Amino acid sequence: MELRERDGIWYLDSQTPTCTLSYKVKRILFMGETRYQRVEVVETYDYGRCLIIDGKIQSSTSDEWVYHEALVHPSMVSHPSPLRVLMVGGGEGATLREVLKHSPVREAVMVDLDREVIEIVKKYMAELPQGSFENPKVKLYFEDGRSFLERQPDGSFDVIIVDVTDPLEGSPSIPLYTKEFYEVARAKLTDAGLIVTQASPLYYNLDCHARIYRTMATVFPVACSYRADVPSYVSSWGFVAGSKGPNPAALTPGEVDGKLAERKVGELKFYDGLTHQSMFTHPKHIRKALEAEKSISTDGNPVFMPI
Amino acid sequence: MELRERDGIWYLDSQTPTCTLSYKVKRILFMGETRYQRVEVVETYDYGRCLIIDGKIQSSTSDEWVYHEALVHPSMVSHPSPLRVLMVGGGEGATLREVLKHSPVREAVMVDLDREVIEIVKKYMAELPQGSFENPKVKLYFEDGRSFLERQPDGSFDVIIVDVTDPLEGSPSIPLYTKEFYEVARAKLTDAGLIVTQASPLYYNLDCHARIYRTMATVFPVACSYRADVPSYVSSWGFVAGSKGPNPAALTPGEVDGKLAERKVGELKFYDGLTHQSMFTHPKHIRKALEAEKSISTDGNPVFMPI
Amino acid sequence: MELRERDGIWYLDSQTPTCTLSYKVKRILFMGETRYQRVEVVETYDYGRCLIIDGKIQSSTSDEWVYHEALVHPSMVSHPSPLRVLMVGGGEGATLREVLKHSPVREAVMVDLDREVIEIVKKYMAELPQGSFENPKVKLYFEDGRSFLERQPDGSFDVIIVDVTDPLEGSPSIPLYTKEFYEVARAKLTDAGLIVTQASPLYYNLDCHARIYRTMATVFPVACSYRADVPSYVSSWGFVAGSKGPNPAALTPGEVDGKLAERKVGELKFYDGLTHQSMFTHPKHIRKALEAEKSISTDGNPVFMPI
Amino acid sequence: MELRERDGIWYLDSQTPTCTLSYKVKRILFMGETRYQRVEVVETYDYGRCLIIDGKIQSSTSDEWVYHEALVHPSMVSHPSPLRVLMVGGGEGATLREVLKHSPVREAVMVDLDREVIEIVKKYMAELPQGSFENPKVKLYFEDGRSFLERQPDGSFDVIIVDVTDPLEGSPSIPLYTKEFYEVARAKLTDAGLIVTQASPLYYNLDCHARIYRTMATVFPVACSYRADVPSYVSSWGFVAGSKGPNPAALTPGEVDGKLAERKVGELKFYDGLTHQSMFTHPKHIRKALEAEKSISTDGNPVFMPI
Repeated sequence: MELRERDGIWYLDSQTPTCTLSYKVKRILFMGETRYQRVEVVETYDYGRCLIIDGKIQSSTSDEWVYHEALVHPSMVSHPSPLRVLMVGGGEGATLREVLKHSPVREAVMVDLDREVIEIVKKYMAELPQGSFENPKVKLYFEDGRSFLERQPDGSFDVIIVDVTDPLEGSPSIPLYTKEFYEVARAKLTDAGLIVTQASPLYYNLDCHARIYRTMATVFPVACSYRADVPSYVSSWGFVAGSKGPNPAALTPGEVDGKLAERKVGELKFYDGLTHQSMFTHPKHIRKALEAEKSISTDGNPVFMPI
Repeated sequence: MELRERDGIWYLDSQTPTCTLSYKVKRILFMGETRYQRVEVVETYDYGRCLIIDGKIQSSTSDEWVYHEALVHPSMVSHPSPLRVLMVGGGEGATLREVLKHSPVREAVMVDLDREVIEIVKKYMAELPQGSFENPKVKLYFEDGRSFLERQPDGSFDVIIVDVTDPLEGSPSIPLYTKEFYEVARAKLTDAGLIVTQASPLYYNLDCHARIYRTMATVFPVACSYRADVPSYVSSWGFVAGSKGPNPAALTPGEVDGKLAERKVGELKFYDGLTHQSMFTHPKHIRKALEAEKSISTDGNPVFMPI
Repeated sequence: MELRERDGIWYLDSQTPTCTLSYKVKRILFMGETRYQRVEVVETYDYGRCLIIDGKIQSSTSDEWVYHEALVHPSMVSHPSPLRVLMVGGGEGATLREVLKHSPVREAVMVDLDREVIEIVKKYMAELPQGSFENPKVKLYFEDGRSFLERQPDGSFDVIIVDVTDPLEGSPSIPLYTKEFYEVARAKLTDAGLIVTQASPLYYNLDCHARIYRTMATVFPVACSYRADVPSYVSSWGFVAGSKGPNPAALTPGEVDGKLAERKVGELKFYDGLTHQSMFTHPKHIRKALEAEKSISTDGNPVFMPI
Repeated sequence: MELRERDGIWYLDSQTPTCTLSYKVKRILFMGETRYQRVEVVETYDYGRCLIIDGKIQSSTSDEWVYHEALVHPSMVSHPSPLRVLMVGGGEGATLREVLKHSPVREAVMVDLDREVIEIVKKYMAELPQGSFENPKVKLYFEDGRSFLERQPDGSFDVIIVDVTDPLEGSPSIPLYTKEFYEVARAKLTDAGLIVTQASPLYYNLDCHARIYRTMATVFPVACSYRADVPSYVSSWGFVAGSKGPNPAALTPGEVDGKLAERKVGELKFYDGLTHQSMFTHPKHIRKALEAEKSISTDGNPVFMPI
């Protein structure tokens, strides 16, 4: 009865106009539209339960921990004492979950445009936030992240984490990937502060990642590109950190493991000192492409991924 | 933003191992398993709301009336006075809906294996039964149709309508397409009685249709193959009627229209006298293939569609 | 090893933006671009060898004879004595093949834009033209069909057959589906002359077919819509004939069979008198939709199929 | 005209029974069957020209250099002086191409079952072997790799490179992934000899990779798992090396770069000292899974990937 296996409900995800990935769906948990975006929660055979926003997988229970640990911990361990952390985006609550694992954190501020996504996640993917939204250290705001940040006093945050959708053509997240935004962030960070952003795939659309890296390097004295393999995102995924002080790429495996222990971060699944080292060491052709990139992203000429 | 149109939830339906049809899905209304089968109710862009059983579209709101009018009315108008009608299968309630339009009907008996499908249809596709299950002329039984029929007295029904899934390899409906079943039906029909069955596609798997026709022609003095275009079934769809008396193919358009009026059937969307004539007149190559078919379907060597 | 059956080369054919049909390909015989269009010749598992132009199946060896017999013979048998026949389009040579079966034909003129398609067909699908291009009665012209026709003297042709691609948005064939073109055709036909055109699918995009029918009915005293099931086109396929004299729909099965015999047309696979009758008798809802259509196609506001 | 972009020829590649990747094809260069396997050479939009064997991409011009540099150089630089190198498989000639870059190599022996693949590659993907098959140091044999190796004297090779298809269920390459095969290889290697094998994906089917690693670790005093991102293989790709002496994982970036320079390997695109370090450092969960794997692959109970 193999043929029947092929029939039924599938989820199609275009990687490029000429490359499509399709997953068979076991169950649909939610299908609807918020004020801002189309949202689906589906149970797949290959990646567990997936949150899909505007047709793109945002998080799957099978590997969201790779993405969220990779996004959060390198900058957190690089900072000597992250007391106040800002998250822009991050509606799944899993970035928040990882931030709260660092004992020094006093205040975790999260600004997301779409309140409804958080309600959907709490209802259908509660294993993502794991109750983080209820933590008394957390402050939630529902508005545009950039204008929120502009209104804060200078030096407000030790770490800023940008966890928003890719800068797809036409997306509202495009202004969160420009030089002007990073300049605002630099002002709002404390002296040894760091910003980190998810920074699109490393293989198809490497240009996009490289421009984000080059832009960050224009604004911050230290900028690092690093990556992690998130199977449900297909390609090796890129991240970019900018720092006013500490250099994440310079941490040794021992220093990373020491800091995680000292902060009582607890058992992680993906991240530790060796993972850190491997993430920050790109293959030769990626290093060359990053160095070769000269173009930056500005409000007037922002980077975006054509669709 | 056209690329995004391609992304999202689709329903895949293999026509053959080397031909797949896929529809984009607007909304999933139900996804689950009954005791007997996997059932989905989805809203598509192309065919409206669809009832899918074991991965195959059974009925779509966009064209179920073609299928159900084609299945029911030719045999009903051929019989001089159909008082007792038996339906084997027909869980959507739409076959029942059409049967009840004929004023002579005193008793409409329906036997379906799967009580849960009827509940799902009543909840999510109420436009199919349109309340027919509540009609006092209706008697519902939930059990195997063939053994039910075997237990009835001879001469119990004027018309028998078989509205079950295709005889796909491994399907429980295979015994409802054999010579032995048709012999039981012949005994249970009144003297001028007719049986009609849905009889799989006319284009791919024409062999299957032709064998059903040839089997019926072995058991009944009159057997007719006819067809209707049901777009959501892709191919032109086949039906086979067997009769102990009247010949449906011999009815003129005027006779059909006269009978529909006399019985106060009301306004139909697909069926009338001219439609009847066209349905019963196959293109030359189909006629030749039906005549050329020599093989029949028996319990020991039943017809089935390989998957 | 069933999974492997799914892998490999497939041909994708969008029926609508939300419905895609895909066929597995056994072999690619040709893939290239002519001056005017993209052309592929592929061997499929389901439909034999297929000619694909701009991504759409034009003819498959499994059922091209349904389409070409349906396009040609109803108008040819309706005309009392077709001496001069014009084909606009028809690069496969199969329309020509059918026309030449009628013994009265003295001259078969074919005008197609794309000389290269004919060479590809002769090389890779020779079973379509079956040598017709070499018949001494044939005159071939490579140019735009409408301007060719405009230059001919009035009363030049007994039958005109339009065998061009669908009026897809942006297609060069759109001007061959307008009132102005049909007016030119009317002038170039002899007194009892007929024009017939392929007229797009009957199920999805029925509007398109209905507008072509309505347009023809505005220009000619007699206009008929008819259909044939061409499995590789998925939907039941539409045709529209316009006539200055004889009414194809009025022919009885006996008259059709008599004319085919008298003209020594030879054994056909699809078409005969009964097929003719069935083709010209639409189901009720199609008849109603055709009558309800009020809009016509003009050069200024032509009918087209959105893509 | 975006819809048309979707239509046409695509290549479907099942990652799992419930996950399919499809690429649009620009051109088919070759489609046929050798005595042993089905072979296609297609030009895709996303990955350039691809060699597809039995429905799986073996090499694409866009990233074959990642795979082949990753397969060859870590073991070659680990060996103090690789004079005689054996390749099992490697019909594309690209493994050979990389081996020949190491100046110490005196003899490069390649054993592949399928002579025809080499002819197809030379004709349609000449950028892969780049003339390596004509190098006088090369000896080519066309036969089963395992029985060839069994017949060689002990201590025949410094490095053995296994470049064969994945151990898919039913594949002839399964016996090249067992303990017994690795024992033969150990005997045929010189004292400081190494064997390396491609070892299937790291994400889906990690079990398969882990079993190959565990098997190698049972036979050789040193065994290493490492990986490289080959975008056209979708997942991060695994490799396993076994060594009778030197430990590839212990090389520092400086040592790797020094050895490449000393051997006049020339400019590589993917591999250098930093790449080496990153490849041999897995994320935490991969390390844990490798350690947890207890099962090995034997001739009687070989590892395979279910299809």
